[in-house]
Amino acid sequence: MKIGIVGGTGDIGEGMARRLSSRYDVVLGSREAEKAHTTSECTIGLLKQRGLKSSCTGVSNQEAVDAAGVIILAVPFLHLESTLSGLSGFEGKIVVSPVNPMEKKDFFIPVPPPEGSAALLVKKLLPGARVVTAFNTIAANRWKDLDAEIDVAVPVCSDDPDAKSVVMGIVNGTSKMKAYDAGPLAVSSMVESLTPLFINVARYNKMRDVGIKFV
Amino acid sequence: MKIGIVGGTGDIGEGMARRLSSRYDVVLGSREAEKAHTTSECTIGLLKQRGLKSSCTGVSNQEAVDAAGVIILAVPFLHLESTLSGLSGFEGKIVVSPVNPMEKKDFFIPVPPPEGSAALLVKKLLPGARVVTAFNTIAANRWKDLDAEIDVAVPVCSDDPDAKSVVMGIVNGTSKMKAYDAGPLAVSSMVESLTPLFINVARYNKMRDVGIKFV
Repeated sequence: MKIGIVGGTGDIGEGMARRLSSRYDVVLGSREAEKAHTTSECTIGLLKQRGLKSSCTGVSNQEAVDAAGVIILAVPFLHLESTLSGLSGFEGKIVVSPVNPMEKKDFFIPVPPPEGSAALLVKKLLPGARVVTAFNTIAANRWKDLDAEIDVAVPVCSDDPDAKSVVMGIVNGTSKMKAYDAGPLAVSSMVESLTPLFINVARYNKMRDVGIKFV
Repeated sequence: MKIGIVGGTGDIGEGMARRLSSRYDVVLGSREAEKAHTTSECTIGLLKQRGLKSSCTGVSNQEAVDAAGVIILAVPFLHLESTLSGLSGFEGKIVVSPVNPMEKKDFFIPVPPPEGSAALLVKKLLPGARVVTAFNTIAANRWKDLDAEIDVAVPVCSDDPDAKSVVMGIVNGTSKMKAYDAGPLAVSSMVESLTPLFINVARYNKMRDVGIKFV
Protein backbone atom coordinates (compact mmCIF):
# COMPACT_ATOMS: atom_id res chain seq x y z
CA MET A 1 0.00 0.00 0.00
CA LYS A 2 1.27 3.47 -0.89
CA ILE A 3 0.78 6.15 1.74
CA GLY A 4 1.27 9.77 0.71
CA ILE A 5 2.11 12.39 3.31
CA VAL A 6 1.19 15.97 2.39
CA GLY A 7 3.38 18.19 4.55
CA GLY A 8 5.84 15.38 5.04
CA THR A 9 8.75 17.62 6.02
CA GLY A 10 6.96 19.04 9.06
CA ASP A 11 7.55 17.62 12.53
CA ILE A 12 4.53 15.32 12.45
CA GLY A 13 4.99 14.27 8.82
CA GLU A 14 8.65 13.44 9.36
CA GLY A 15 7.77 11.32 12.40
CA MET A 16 4.99 9.55 10.49
CA ALA A 17 7.45 8.66 7.71
CA ARG A 18 9.80 7.08 10.27
CA ARG A 19 7.06 4.87 11.68
CA LEU A 20 5.14 4.05 8.48
CA SER A 21 7.93 3.55 5.93
CA SER A 22 9.15 0.27 7.43
CA ARG A 23 5.76 -1.27 6.70
CA TYR A 24 4.31 0.71 3.80
CA ASP A 25 5.60 2.53 0.73
CA VAL A 26 5.67 6.13 1.90
CA VAL A 27 5.55 8.95 -0.65
CA LEU A 28 6.63 11.97 1.29
CA GLY A 29 5.40 15.28 -0.14
CA SER A 30 6.43 18.86 0.47
CA ARG A 31 5.95 22.22 -1.17
CA GLU A 32 9.65 21.86 -2.01
CA ALA A 33 10.39 18.48 -3.55
CA GLU A 34 14.09 18.91 -2.79
CA LYS A 35 13.37 19.24 0.93
CA ALA A 36 11.16 16.16 0.74
CA HIS A 37 13.98 14.26 -0.91
CA THR A 38 16.38 15.19 1.92
CA THR A 39 13.87 14.17 4.62
CA SER A 40 13.24 10.93 2.78
CA GLU A 41 16.96 10.11 2.58
CA CYS A 42 17.32 10.89 6.31
CA THR A 43 14.42 8.60 7.12
CA ILE A 44 15.92 5.74 5.13
CA GLY A 45 19.32 6.30 6.78
CA LEU A 46 17.85 6.45 10.26
CA LEU A 47 15.96 3.19 9.83
CA LYS A 48 18.98 1.53 8.20
CA GLN A 49 21.04 2.29 11.33
CA ARG A 50 18.46 0.25 13.23
CA GLY A 51 18.57 -2.61 10.78
CA LEU A 52 15.18 -1.71 9.37
CA LYS A 53 14.21 -1.35 5.75
CA SER A 54 12.44 1.83 4.75
CA SER A 55 10.49 2.55 1.59
CA CYS A 56 10.38 6.33 1.39
CA THR A 57 10.43 8.69 -1.60
CA GLY A 58 10.55 12.48 -1.40
CA VAL A 59 8.41 14.34 -3.95
CA SER A 60 6.15 17.38 -4.26
CA ASN A 61 2.83 17.40 -2.40
CA GLN A 62 0.95 16.95 -5.70
CA GLU A 63 3.11 13.98 -6.67
CA ALA A 64 2.43 12.43 -3.24
CA VAL A 65 -1.31 12.80 -3.85
CA ASP A 66 -1.02 11.35 -7.35
CA ALA A 67 1.08 8.36 -6.30
CA ALA A 68 -0.75 7.17 -3.19
CA GLY A 69 -4.10 5.55 -2.41
CA VAL A 70 -4.04 6.79 1.18
CA ILE A 71 -3.04 10.41 1.76
CA ILE A 72 -2.32 11.85 5.21
CA LEU A 73 -2.71 15.62 5.59
CA ALA A 74 0.15 16.37 7.99
CA VAL A 75 -0.38 20.13 7.92
CA PRO A 76 -1.33 22.58 10.68
CA PHE A 77 -4.95 23.74 10.56
CA LEU A 78 -3.75 27.25 9.73
CA HIS A 79 -2.35 26.05 6.38
CA LEU A 80 -4.93 23.36 5.64
CA GLU A 81 -7.17 25.31 3.29
CA SER A 82 -4.34 27.03 1.37
CA THR A 83 -2.44 23.74 0.98
CA LEU A 84 -5.48 21.87 -0.34
CA SER A 85 -6.47 24.69 -2.72
CA GLY A 86 -3.19 24.15 -4.59
CA LEU A 87 -3.67 20.38 -4.98
CA SER A 88 -6.03 18.15 -6.97
CA GLY A 89 -6.81 14.51 -7.74
CA PHE A 90 -8.15 13.38 -4.37
CA GLU A 91 -11.32 11.83 -5.83
CA GLY A 92 -11.85 8.25 -4.69
CA LYS A 93 -8.76 8.32 -2.48
CA ILE A 94 -8.62 7.86 1.27
CA VAL A 95 -7.67 11.16 2.89
CA VAL A 96 -6.63 11.05 6.54
CA SER A 97 -7.01 14.19 8.65
CA PRO A 98 -4.96 14.28 11.88
CA VAL A 99 -5.60 18.04 11.96
CA ASN A 100 -6.68 19.77 15.18
CA PRO A 101 -8.04 23.32 14.84
CA MET A 102 -6.91 25.00 18.06
CA GLU A 103 -5.64 28.26 19.48
CA LYS A 104 -3.23 29.13 22.25
CA LYS A 105 -4.48 31.73 24.68
CA ASP A 106 -3.40 31.33 28.30
CA PHE A 107 -4.29 27.72 27.53
CA PHE A 108 -5.14 25.73 24.42
CA ILE A 109 -8.74 25.62 23.21
CA PRO A 110 -10.39 24.03 20.16
CA VAL A 111 -11.41 26.52 17.48
CA PRO A 112 -13.41 24.49 14.96
CA PRO A 113 -14.22 26.02 11.56
CA PRO A 114 -17.86 26.77 10.61
CA GLU A 115 -18.10 23.28 9.09
CA GLY A 116 -17.80 21.85 12.63
CA SER A 117 -14.36 20.24 12.42
CA ALA A 118 -11.21 20.11 10.32
CA ALA A 119 -12.32 16.75 8.91
CA LEU A 120 -15.67 18.17 7.78
CA LEU A 121 -13.84 21.11 6.18
CA VAL A 122 -11.60 18.64 4.31
CA LYS A 123 -14.71 16.77 3.16
CA LYS A 124 -16.15 20.03 1.80
CA LEU A 125 -12.88 21.09 0.13
CA LEU A 126 -12.21 17.69 -1.46
CA PRO A 127 -15.49 16.38 -2.88
CA GLY A 128 -15.21 12.69 -3.73
CA ALA A 129 -12.41 12.05 -1.23
CA ARG A 130 -13.01 9.35 1.38
CA VAL A 131 -12.17 11.37 4.50
CA VAL A 132 -11.06 9.69 7.73
CA THR A 133 -10.11 11.34 11.04
CA ALA A 134 -7.16 9.58 12.71
CA PHE A 135 -3.83 10.07 14.49
CA ASN A 136 -5.05 13.39 15.99
CA THR A 137 -3.67 12.90 19.47
CA ILE A 138 -0.18 11.66 18.72
CA ALA A 139 2.49 14.26 19.43
CA ALA A 140 5.34 14.78 16.95
CA ASN A 141 7.90 13.71 19.56
CA ARG A 142 6.18 10.36 19.97
CA TRP A 143 6.12 9.78 16.21
CA LYS A 144 9.81 10.62 15.96
CA ASP A 145 11.30 8.81 18.94
CA LEU A 146 11.91 5.33 17.56
CA ASP A 147 13.31 4.22 20.93
CA ALA A 148 9.80 4.17 22.41
CA GLU A 149 6.65 2.37 21.35
CA ILE A 150 3.50 4.48 20.87
CA ASP A 151 1.13 2.57 23.12
CA VAL A 152 -2.01 4.72 22.88
CA ALA A 153 -5.64 4.69 21.76
CA VAL A 154 -6.40 6.27 18.37
CA PRO A 155 -10.05 7.22 17.81
CA VAL A 156 -11.01 7.00 14.10
CA CYS A 157 -14.02 8.67 12.45
CA SER A 158 -15.38 8.34 8.91
CA ASP A 159 -18.60 8.16 6.92
CA ASP A 160 -16.99 5.55 4.62
CA PRO A 161 -16.85 2.14 6.37
CA ASP A 162 -14.26 0.66 4.00
CA ALA A 163 -11.96 3.67 4.23
CA LYS A 164 -12.34 3.60 8.01
CA SER A 165 -11.43 -0.05 8.09
CA VAL A 166 -8.29 0.50 5.96
CA VAL A 167 -7.12 3.32 8.23
CA MET A 168 -7.87 1.36 11.41
CA GLY A 169 -5.67 -1.38 9.93
CA ILE A 170 -2.82 1.08 9.40
CA VAL A 171 -3.25 2.38 12.97
CA ASN A 172 -3.22 -1.12 14.45
CA GLY A 173 -0.09 -1.99 12.47
CA THR A 174 1.85 1.06 13.66
CA SER A 175 3.91 0.67 16.84
CA LYS A 176 1.49 -0.33 19.61
CA MET A 177 -1.34 1.99 18.61
CA LYS A 178 -4.86 0.66 19.06
CA ALA A 179 -7.60 1.96 16.76
CA TYR A 180 -11.11 2.62 18.07
CA ASP A 181 -14.09 3.33 15.86
CA ALA A 182 -15.36 6.68 17.19
CA GLY A 183 -18.24 7.03 14.71
CA PRO A 184 -19.01 9.20 11.67
CA LEU A 185 -17.25 12.42 10.65
CA ALA A 186 -20.07 14.33 12.36
CA VAL A 187 -18.43 13.57 15.72
CA SER A 188 -14.85 14.27 14.63
CA SER A 189 -14.90 17.61 16.49
CA MET A 190 -14.79 15.64 19.76
CA VAL A 191 -11.67 13.80 18.61
CA GLU A 192 -10.08 17.06 17.43
CA SER A 193 -10.81 18.57 20.88
CA LEU A 194 -8.68 15.98 22.64
CA THR A 195 -5.32 17.45 21.68
CA PRO A 196 -5.80 20.93 23.21
CA LEU A 197 -7.08 19.19 26.37
CA PHE A 198 -4.01 16.92 26.45
CA ILE A 199 -1.61 19.83 25.90
CA ASN A 200 -3.21 21.64 28.86
CA VAL A 201 -3.05 18.50 31.02
CA ALA A 202 0.62 18.05 30.09
CA ARG A 203 1.39 21.63 30.98
CA TYR A 204 -0.49 21.79 34.27
CA ASN A 205 0.76 18.40 35.49
CA LYS A 206 4.36 18.62 34.29
CA MET A 207 3.95 15.79 31.82
CA ARG A 208 5.10 15.49 28.20
CA ASP A 209 3.30 14.42 25.04
CA VAL A 210 0.18 13.16 26.80
CA GLY A 211 -1.82 10.46 25.02
CA ILE A 212 -4.72 8.26 26.10
CA LYS A 213 -5.81 4.73 26.60
CA PHE A 214 -9.44 3.72 26.88
CA VAL A 215 -10.04 1.55 29.96
CA MET B 1 -15.25 16.79 55.49
CA LYS B 2 -18.95 16.85 54.63
CA ILE B 3 -19.82 16.20 51.01
CA GLY B 4 -23.35 17.01 49.89
CA ILE B 5 -24.81 15.28 46.84
CA VAL B 6 -27.61 17.16 45.09
CA GLY B 7 -29.55 14.55 43.12
CA GLY B 8 -28.21 11.81 45.35
CA THR B 9 -30.93 9.29 44.48
CA GLY B 10 -30.09 9.23 40.78
CA ASP B 11 -27.84 6.54 39.32
CA ILE B 12 -24.67 8.61 39.53
CA GLY B 13 -25.46 10.13 42.94
CA GLU B 14 -26.23 6.76 44.45
CA GLY B 15 -22.95 5.36 43.14
CA MET B 16 -21.02 8.37 44.43
CA ALA B 17 -22.50 7.85 47.90
CA ARG B 18 -21.29 4.23 47.89
CA ARG B 19 -17.75 5.25 47.06
CA LEU B 20 -17.47 8.47 49.09
CA SER B 21 -19.33 7.60 52.32
CA SER B 22 -16.67 5.22 53.60
CA ARG B 23 -14.21 8.09 53.68
CA TYR B 24 -16.26 11.25 54.05
CA ASP B 25 -19.53 12.29 55.71
CA VAL B 26 -21.97 12.17 52.84
CA VAL B 27 -25.17 14.20 53.00
CA LEU B 28 -27.32 12.75 50.29
CA GLY B 29 -29.95 15.12 48.95
CA SER B 30 -33.05 14.56 46.84
CA ARG B 31 -36.19 16.46 45.89
CA GLU B 32 -37.90 13.91 48.15
CA ALA B 33 -36.11 13.61 51.49
CA GLU B 34 -37.85 10.27 52.15
CA LYS B 35 -36.33 8.79 49.00
CA ALA B 36 -32.93 10.14 50.04
CA HIS B 37 -33.35 8.50 53.42
CA THR B 38 -34.04 5.12 51.81
CA THR B 39 -31.04 5.41 49.47
CA SER B 40 -28.89 6.41 52.41
CA GLU B 41 -29.99 3.40 54.48
CA CYS B 42 -29.31 1.13 51.49
CA THR B 43 -25.85 2.59 51.08
CA ILE B 44 -24.99 2.03 54.74
CA GLY B 45 -26.35 -1.54 54.57
CA LEU B 46 -24.43 -2.32 51.39
CA LEU B 47 -21.14 -1.13 52.84
CA LYS B 48 -21.78 -2.90 56.15
CA GLN B 49 -22.11 -6.21 54.27
CA ARG B 50 -18.58 -5.59 53.06
CA GLY B 51 -17.31 -4.75 56.52
CA LEU B 52 -17.04 -1.06 55.67
CA LYS B 53 -18.30 1.85 57.71
CA SER B 54 -20.46 4.38 55.91
CA SER B 55 -21.40 7.87 57.00
CA CYS B 56 -24.45 8.73 54.94
CA THR B 57 -27.54 10.79 55.74
CA GLY B 58 -30.56 11.24 53.47
CA VAL B 59 -32.08 14.73 53.39
CA SER B 60 -33.61 17.25 50.98
CA ASN B 61 -31.39 18.83 48.33
CA GLN B 62 -31.51 22.15 50.24
CA GLU B 63 -30.46 20.46 53.48
CA ALA B 64 -27.58 18.79 51.64
CA VAL B 65 -26.41 22.21 50.39
CA ASP B 66 -26.77 23.73 53.87
CA ALA B 67 -24.91 20.94 55.66
CA ALA B 68 -21.91 20.42 53.39
CA GLY B 69 -18.79 22.38 52.43
CA VAL B 70 -18.39 20.49 49.16
CA ILE B 71 -21.51 19.96 47.07
CA ILE B 72 -21.64 17.66 44.04
CA LEU B 73 -24.32 18.39 41.46
CA ALA B 74 -25.29 14.85 40.42
CA VAL B 75 -28.07 15.96 38.11
CA PRO B 76 -28.53 15.55 34.35
CA PHE B 77 -27.87 18.71 32.35
CA LEU B 78 -31.55 18.81 31.38
CA HIS B 79 -32.53 19.41 35.03
CA LEU B 80 -29.51 21.45 36.11
CA GLU B 81 -30.99 24.93 35.79
CA SER B 82 -34.40 24.06 37.30
CA THR B 83 -32.77 22.21 40.20
CA LEU B 84 -30.41 25.08 41.04
CA SER B 85 -33.16 27.71 40.74
CA GLY B 86 -34.94 26.07 43.69
CA LEU B 87 -31.87 26.04 45.93
CA SER B 88 -29.80 28.68 47.72
CA GLY B 89 -26.85 29.12 50.07
CA PHE B 90 -24.00 28.07 47.75
CA GLU B 91 -21.90 31.20 48.45
CA GLY B 92 -18.35 30.34 49.49
CA LYS B 93 -18.92 26.62 49.07
CA ILE B 94 -17.13 24.28 46.70
CA VAL B 95 -19.58 23.16 44.03
CA VAL B 96 -18.53 20.22 41.86
CA SER B 97 -20.05 19.84 38.39
CA PRO B 98 -19.77 16.37 36.83
CA VAL B 99 -22.46 17.47 34.35
CA ASN B 100 -22.10 16.79 30.63
CA PRO B 101 -24.46 18.66 28.31
CA MET B 102 -25.07 16.20 25.48
CA GLU B 103 -27.69 14.92 23.08
CA LYS B 104 -28.37 11.56 21.56
CA LYS B 105 -28.93 11.62 17.82
CA ASP B 106 -27.70 8.60 15.87
CA PHE B 107 -24.70 9.13 18.15
CA PHE B 108 -23.94 11.27 21.19
CA ILE B 109 -22.70 14.82 20.71
CA PRO B 110 -21.88 17.63 23.16
CA VAL B 111 -24.46 20.40 23.25
CA PRO B 112 -22.93 23.10 25.44
CA PRO B 113 -25.12 25.96 26.68
CA PRO B 114 -24.45 29.55 25.50
CA GLU B 115 -22.15 30.02 28.52
CA GLY B 116 -19.75 27.50 26.91
CA SER B 117 -20.08 24.60 29.33
CA ALA B 118 -22.24 23.25 32.15
CA ALA B 119 -19.61 24.38 34.65
CA LEU B 120 -19.67 27.96 33.34
CA LEU B 121 -23.48 27.91 33.51
CA VAL B 122 -23.24 26.77 37.16
CA LYS B 123 -20.80 29.61 37.84
CA LYS B 124 -23.30 32.09 36.38
CA LEU B 125 -26.28 30.62 38.25
CA LEU B 126 -24.45 30.40 41.61
CA PRO B 127 -22.49 33.62 42.09
CA GLY B 128 -20.01 33.25 44.93
CA ALA B 129 -19.79 29.48 44.60
CA ARG B 130 -16.32 27.99 44.04
CA VAL B 131 -17.09 25.88 40.97
CA VAL B 132 -14.98 22.85 40.05
CA THR B 133 -15.42 20.47 37.10
CA ALA B 134 -14.70 16.85 38.07
CA PHE B 135 -15.89 13.25 37.81
CA ASN B 136 -17.39 13.93 34.37
CA THR B 137 -16.26 10.76 32.67
CA ILE B 138 -17.14 8.18 35.29
CA ALA B 139 -20.14 6.07 34.32
CA ALA B 140 -22.82 5.29 36.92
CA ASN B 141 -22.09 1.56 36.68
CA ARG B 142 -18.48 2.15 37.63
CA TRP B 143 -19.46 4.24 40.65
CA LYS B 144 -21.90 1.56 41.78
CA ASP B 145 -19.92 -1.63 41.25
CA LEU B 146 -17.97 -1.94 44.48
CA ASP B 147 -16.38 -5.18 43.25
CA ALA B 148 -14.19 -3.21 40.83
CA GLU B 149 -11.75 -0.38 41.41
CA ILE B 150 -12.21 2.76 39.30
CA ASP B 151 -8.73 3.06 37.86
CA VAL B 152 -9.13 6.07 35.56
CA ALA B 153 -7.91 9.61 34.96
CA VAL B 154 -10.15 12.43 36.20
CA PRO B 155 -9.50 15.85 34.63
CA VAL B 156 -10.34 18.69 37.04
CA CYS B 157 -10.96 22.35 36.10
CA SER B 158 -11.47 25.41 38.29
CA ASP B 159 -10.67 29.09 38.55
CA ASP B 160 -10.21 28.68 42.34
CA PRO B 161 -6.85 26.98 43.09
CA ASP B 162 -7.77 26.01 46.67
CA ALA B 163 -11.12 24.56 45.67
CA LYS B 164 -9.42 22.67 42.85
CA SER B 165 -6.87 21.28 45.25
CA VAL B 166 -9.57 20.07 47.69
CA VAL B 167 -11.47 18.32 44.89
CA MET B 168 -8.29 16.76 43.44
CA GLY B 169 -7.67 15.37 46.93
CA ILE B 170 -11.14 13.82 47.02
CA VAL B 171 -10.59 12.34 43.55
CA ASN B 172 -7.22 10.88 44.50
CA GLY B 173 -8.73 9.36 47.65
CA THR B 174 -11.56 7.64 45.80
CA SER B 175 -10.93 4.10 44.55
CA LYS B 176 -7.96 4.28 42.19
CA MET B 177 -8.92 7.51 40.47
CA LYS B 178 -6.11 9.86 39.53
CA ALA B 179 -6.80 13.58 39.36
CA TYR B 180 -5.22 15.76 36.66
CA ASP B 181 -5.31 19.54 36.67
CA ALA B 182 -6.91 20.37 33.31
CA GLY B 183 -6.86 24.15 33.75
CA PRO B 184 -9.44 26.88 34.38
CA LEU B 185 -13.22 26.61 33.95
CA ALA B 186 -12.82 28.22 30.52
CA VAL B 187 -11.61 24.84 29.20
CA SER B 188 -14.22 22.70 30.97
CA SER B 189 -16.15 22.24 27.71
CA MET B 190 -13.33 19.95 26.53
CA VAL B 191 -13.72 17.80 29.64
CA GLU B 192 -17.50 17.75 29.24
CA SER B 193 -17.05 16.62 25.60
CA LEU B 194 -15.23 13.46 26.66
CA THR B 195 -18.31 11.58 27.84
CA PRO B 196 -20.28 11.68 24.57
CA LEU B 197 -17.06 10.59 22.77
CA PHE B 198 -16.61 7.70 25.22
CA ILE B 199 -20.24 6.58 24.88
CA ASN B 200 -19.80 6.48 21.10
CA VAL B 201 -16.51 4.58 21.42
CA ALA B 202 -18.17 2.09 23.79
CA ARG B 203 -21.05 1.57 21.39
CA TYR B 204 -19.01 1.22 18.19
CA ASN B 205 -16.38 -1.06 19.76
CA LYS B 206 -18.65 -3.23 21.90
CA MET B 207 -17.17 -1.95 25.15
CA ARG B 208 -18.86 -0.85 28.36
CA ASP B 209 -18.45 2.22 30.53
CA VAL B 210 -15.34 3.50 28.78
CA GLY B 211 -12.97 5.67 30.83
CA ILE B 212 -9.48 7.00 30.15
CA LYS B 213 -5.95 6.98 31.39
CA PHE B 214 -3.40 9.56 30.35
CA VAL B 215 -0.21 7.90 29.15
